Amino acid sequence: MIGAQRMLSREDNELLTKVGPGTPMGELFRRFWLPALVSSELEADGAPVRTRLLGEDLVAFRDSTGRAGILGARCPHRLAPLFLGRNEECGLRCIYHGWKFDVDGACVDMPNEPPSRQFKDRIHQLSYPTAEAGGVVWIYMGPPAERPASVPQFEWVKAPEGHTYVARWLQASNWCQGMEGEVDTSHISFLHSQEEDYNPDALVAQNPSLLVDAALDGAPKLTLLEKPYGFTYGARRTLSDQYYWRVTRWLFPFYSLIPGPADGVAGRAWVPIDDHHTWTFHYQCRADRPFTTEEVARIEEGGIFPPRTEYGSYRLPDGYRVDGRIPTANDGNDYLIDREMQKNVNFTGIWGINEQDRSVQEGMGPIVDRSQEHLGTADIAAIAARRLLLNLAKRLAAGESPSVPHQPELYHLRAIETLSQSDGLAELLNQYEATLGAAVM
Amino acid sequence: MIGAQRMLSREDNELLTKVGPGTPMGELFRRFWLPALVSSELEADGAPVRTRLLGEDLVAFRDSTGRAGILGARCPHRLAPLFLGRNEECGLRCIYHGWKFDVDGACVDMPNEPPSRQFKDRIHQLSYPTAEAGGVVWIYMGPPAERPASVPQFEWVKAPEGHTYVARWLQASNWCQGMEGEVDTSHISFLHSQEEDYNPDALVAQNPSLLVDAALDGAPKLTLLEKPYGFTYGARRTLSDQYYWRVTRWLFPFYSLIPGPADGVAGRAWVPIDDHHTWTFHYQCRADRPFTTEEVARIEEGGIFPPRTEYGSYRLPDGYRVDGRIPTANDGNDYLIDREMQKNVNFTGIWGINEQDRSVQEGMGPIVDRSQEHLGTADIAAIAARRLLLNLAKRLAAGESPSVPHQPELYHLRAIETLSQSDGLAELLNQYEATLGAAVM
Amino acid sequence: MIGAQRMLSREDNELLTKVGPGTPMGELFRRFWLPALVSSELEADGAPVRTRLLGEDLVAFRDSTGRAGILGARCPHRLAPLFLGRNEECGLRCIYHGWKFDVDGACVDMPNEPPSRQFKDRIHQLSYPTAEAGGVVWIYMGPPAERPASVPQFEWVKAPEGHTYVARWLQASNWCQGMEGEVDTSHISFLHSQEEDYNPDALVAQNPSLLVDAALDGAPKLTLLEKPYGFTYGARRTLSDQYYWRVTRWLFPFYSLIPGPADGVAGRAWVPIDDHHTWTFHYQCRADRPFTTEEVARIEEGGIFPPRTEYGSYRLPDGYRVDGRIPTANDGNDYLIDREMQKNVNFTGIWGINEQDRSVQEGMGPIVDRSQEHLGTADIAAIAARRLLLNLAKRLAAGESPSVPHQPELYHLRAIETLSQSDGLAELLNQYEATLGAAVM
Repeated sequence: MIGAQRMLSREDNELLTKVGPGTPMGELFRRFWLPALVSSELEADGAPVRTRLLGEDLVAFRDSTGRAGILGARCPHRLAPLFLGRNEECGLRCIYHGWKFDVDGACVDMPNEPPSRQFKDRIHQLSYPTAEAGGVVWIYMGPPAERPASVPQFEWVKAPEGHTYVARWLQASNWCQGMEGEVDTSHISFLHSQEEDYNPDALVAQNPSLLVDAALDGAPKLTLLEKPYGFTYGARRTLSDQYYWRVTRWLFPFYSLIPGPADGVAGRAWVPIDDHHTWTFHYQCRADRPFTTEEVARIEEGGIFPPRTEYGSYRLPDGYRVDGRIPTANDGNDYLIDREMQKNVNFTGIWGINEQDRSVQEGMGPIVDRSQEHLGTADIAAIAARRLLLNLAKRLAAGESPSVPHQPELYHLRAIETLSQSDGLAELLNQYEATLGAAVM
Repeated sequence: MIGAQRMLSREDNELLTKVGPGTPMGELFRRFWLPALVSSELEADGAPVRTRLLGEDLVAFRDSTGRAGILGARCPHRLAPLFLGRNEECGLRCIYHGWKFDVDGACVDMPNEPPSRQFKDRIHQLSYPTAEAGGVVWIYMGPPAERPASVPQFEWVKAPEGHTYVARWLQASNWCQGMEGEVDTSHISFLHSQEEDYNPDALVAQNPSLLVDAALDGAPKLTLLEKPYGFTYGARRTLSDQYYWRVTRWLFPFYSLIPGPADGVAGRAWVPIDDHHTWTFHYQCRADRPFTTEEVARIEEGGIFPPRTEYGSYRLPDGYRVDGRIPTANDGNDYLIDREMQKNVNFTGIWGINEQDRSVQEGMGPIVDRSQEHLGTADIAAIAARRLLLNLAKRLAAGESPSVPHQPELYHLRAIETLSQSDGLAELLNQYEATLGAAVM
Repeated sequence: MIGAQRMLSREDNELLTKVGPGTPMGELFRRFWLPALVSSELEADGAPVRTRLLGEDLVAFRDSTGRAGILGARCPHRLAPLFLGRNEECGLRCIYHGWKFDVDGACVDMPNEPPSRQFKDRIHQLSYPTAEAGGVVWIYMGPPAERPASVPQFEWVKAPEGHTYVARWLQASNWCQGMEGEVDTSHISFLHSQEEDYNPDALVAQNPSLLVDAALDGAPKLTLLEKPYGFTYGARRTLSDQYYWRVTRWLFPFYSLIPGPADGVAGRAWVPIDDHHTWTFHYQCRADRPFTTEEVARIEEGGIFPPRTEYGSYRLPDGYRVDGRIPTANDGNDYLIDREMQKNVNFTGIWGINEQDRSVQEGMGPIVDRSQEHLGTADIAAIAARRLLLNLAKRLAAGESPSVPHQPELYHLRAIETLSQSDGLAELLNQYEATLGAAVM
């Protein structure tokens, strides 16, 4: 059951990766609320932000009352770019002829026509519903009647102000290459490993966090349990007298929950810009208290997530430009690889966890040809995620709507990192649930 | 009659915008003398200039006697670029094997062959007729038998030395987006407006020139009269006790005449490089005296036309490079938009009239999809220009040659800016003609 | 027999220029050992080098024992780029999950799988045989059973250490445009000529080397003799009392041998990266002694071959990057053409022989349309090379394998530069052979 037998067909690879309007996966994604921007990117009456989501060109802005709007990128009059527009008095006004639109896409002013000849009521700019929670502007791009009542109720979404840190940046690959890296436990022992002398048991006892610990054992025992929200995935490593468990969650359609410090979680969402580019959202939450200023500063130095970035614009191959954080280390500079560092310091010679991930995920090309892969037992989580998504997309294409977008409470989960005598994942989950209660299970 | 009803079909949009060899609009354009370069760009025996016109790759040079030649870009021997050639002794010599061509495309030297084996007479390099007038090198790219006797007899073309100022620069959009902006009166009140306190009547009385005045009334009364050369287009704004009229001309296939100072006119020609790029020609003329050095310096600071530029080369998407003025503010730097300036100083936050125009015209994409537009009464001039051009192109495709290229005297016209009691455009034109005489009507 | 009659059909031009897997010319090239890299580019356990050859993406490295390996560019597990890999302990290890490959493509480690689940034996990474000789890493990309016993036995390949100088750099054109320039004698009198006052006979007597001498007579008498290895090509120029002969060799599939100083030869190989890009290999050999440090330094100043370069990476249009020497003067900066220098110093205004060659060869576009050419008697060598290659490729496509790759001793030849009374090439070759013996004829 390894190698050729698990390779995806070219057809399924297309189906898995293409997200434009009318594609099966694109339609599945459009049934979910999706992270669109970090809330702090939009200032009331401030500069609009260009984006593209699921292949659609959009412009986001925050109006005078603080509402976030996401509209089609071009004015319906003569197709001038609304990004250049004036964000003023509860609407975005096109600079060409002054037409103005509110966050719902209504044309609220048409000053280049005499009052008697105006036809504002017949103009409606493309507009998608937004919501704000967890420091994120969410967008819903699907059929209005299918809109879920709320965004997924992640702990990081519901946490009090300051307990959550969120960032968004550009990855130059199909979304799925990023998502697969997220559920790939075994790469941590290689791609992210340091060449250091250490005592595994002592290290884990002191500081069982982040990624260092996973380097202990490159081939842990892996268990995967399918769940209504996706799956739970456990990696069990054997220490001298107990097990070291890391249990992560994968949630439809592209979320991860990974153990973090202080009962917190961290994770990523892989939101397609188009078939070849992705907005990576990183969220990080702690249960006990807000992040301190020093902790935020340390996060933003790069090194883990987010990577080192500059806020700016990025020209997509078809010429359209999008705004956001653009990574400093990228394909154009070989991720600043340092071959001496690769020999003496860490496995890659590349600085930064996300830089390391992107170096391989972007390096596969815009859409990796999964029909050429040779997968093994270490790849079971990626295989499962693909299968579950393909299944849901195919069922939707056959007329069966997914129910999981309408169960936002399913997302109220934690990832788990613990030392335990339990040797089975199901048993461990039961113990953990008993300790914490059902609220965060 | 607004909105969807005036949208162009995709087929007509193709027909309107595509100008390569064999396209209906391309063939129509090839029946006219077209501005190709500014005369001062070519020095006798100086560096050749690469260009592309109507999708054809060309190289221009001025020979030792001062004649301008425009040849196919590649040597017919082995297709090496003639741009690299030696411009010497009445011909352009290819650097690869020394073949030399005169301005008519005749092969006048073939030194890499022994005299007895030369075949100069059988080689004829592609060459188009040129003419020089008004500080412009003109080109005729159509069937020889259909060549008009002279270039259009604009006042700026016939004016004495120094009365005309001409510039050429690159716009990264289809020619038609530029041309439409030229005849779009209502955008002036928005795109080009300043946020200033002023007294409209006093301002118009003092200085009824340039663009500031048009900001007074965003929805003036518009009248359009079709004419043999294209159309005359009048915008009437009501002041306290009279009308403020701005009357502009649109002339086949892409010219504008706009009122300028001192009975002069200004305007633009939109000469297609290819379907996605345009050479914009700006001409500006004054009737009373030559421009002073200070006036030329002020023009060349940018601000109105031409924009700020650097003379250099521009790589087209297929790799071919063209030479000319390349705008400093462009899509790659968001036209240097300044959001504070947008809030406090002018409507756009973009400095310079042409920068403002290009920001929306280029921002629509290389060829705007006119089937998606929603047009109103303010768009009648663009609608008329499209209709007249489509009509002429379709008739030519059906075998009926256009007569207007053979009536160069029709172009001897002025635009009009005046305060008047007349409330109708036809009446105003009659008055004006009586005052000035038929020569410049 | 000149002009249109010798133009290649579009079909034959395709056949001549396309070299990807399965193309007739690509299959012909795959029957030869081909120069892939300069040996000094690869250090044992050093950084891998990305390349593309005949349209195939590859990564080269030198293992701990000094063996050179050339593998497919992407790890067979998940298609991560092996260029980023760790070159350590006799293998290249992928940074994503640690799979490791030796120079033969064997998977020698699969550490992310438990020992019992590893499937190393079923994984074989694409790998091509290599050989090293003459300071070059050679590659054989054809059917294993057809692999020639040795690389071509050029004198420069067999010369003692230090007698040969080799360089590799990128040319942004199809390989054939470079190869044709190599056998084009007549261009030397133009493209590479200096505007100097000189006495031809005296100059040739003193220093009959390099290119200056060829400028004496732009239309020499040319003779071409077909040979089993390709052809010998002689250019005879008449001096006052004797002939000045330059005899060069063209060898399958893309080699040249040109007279050099001290009975040495110089030449180029034109190794396709893909249909639009080429690795140019320059080799230079002297028979009498090794090059001195000063001579090497002088060569590397540019001016002749190689051109001025920087070692770096180059992004091909499809996004893949290759490593090697990238020329400083290139299409993007018009080869640093200086129009004053063109008027007063040399024919082109371009500094450097290879810069001059590339300016026209790259300037023809990625693949020149040979159906548009107008060839003369000066082009007989290019015509012959095309014909011989097309013939061999068509015969291979019809099932007849070429024999020349299996006759490496045929390549043991010198080019000739001499003053002689002989007026025929065959006679001259006989004289020369008698003098030097059969070993180097």
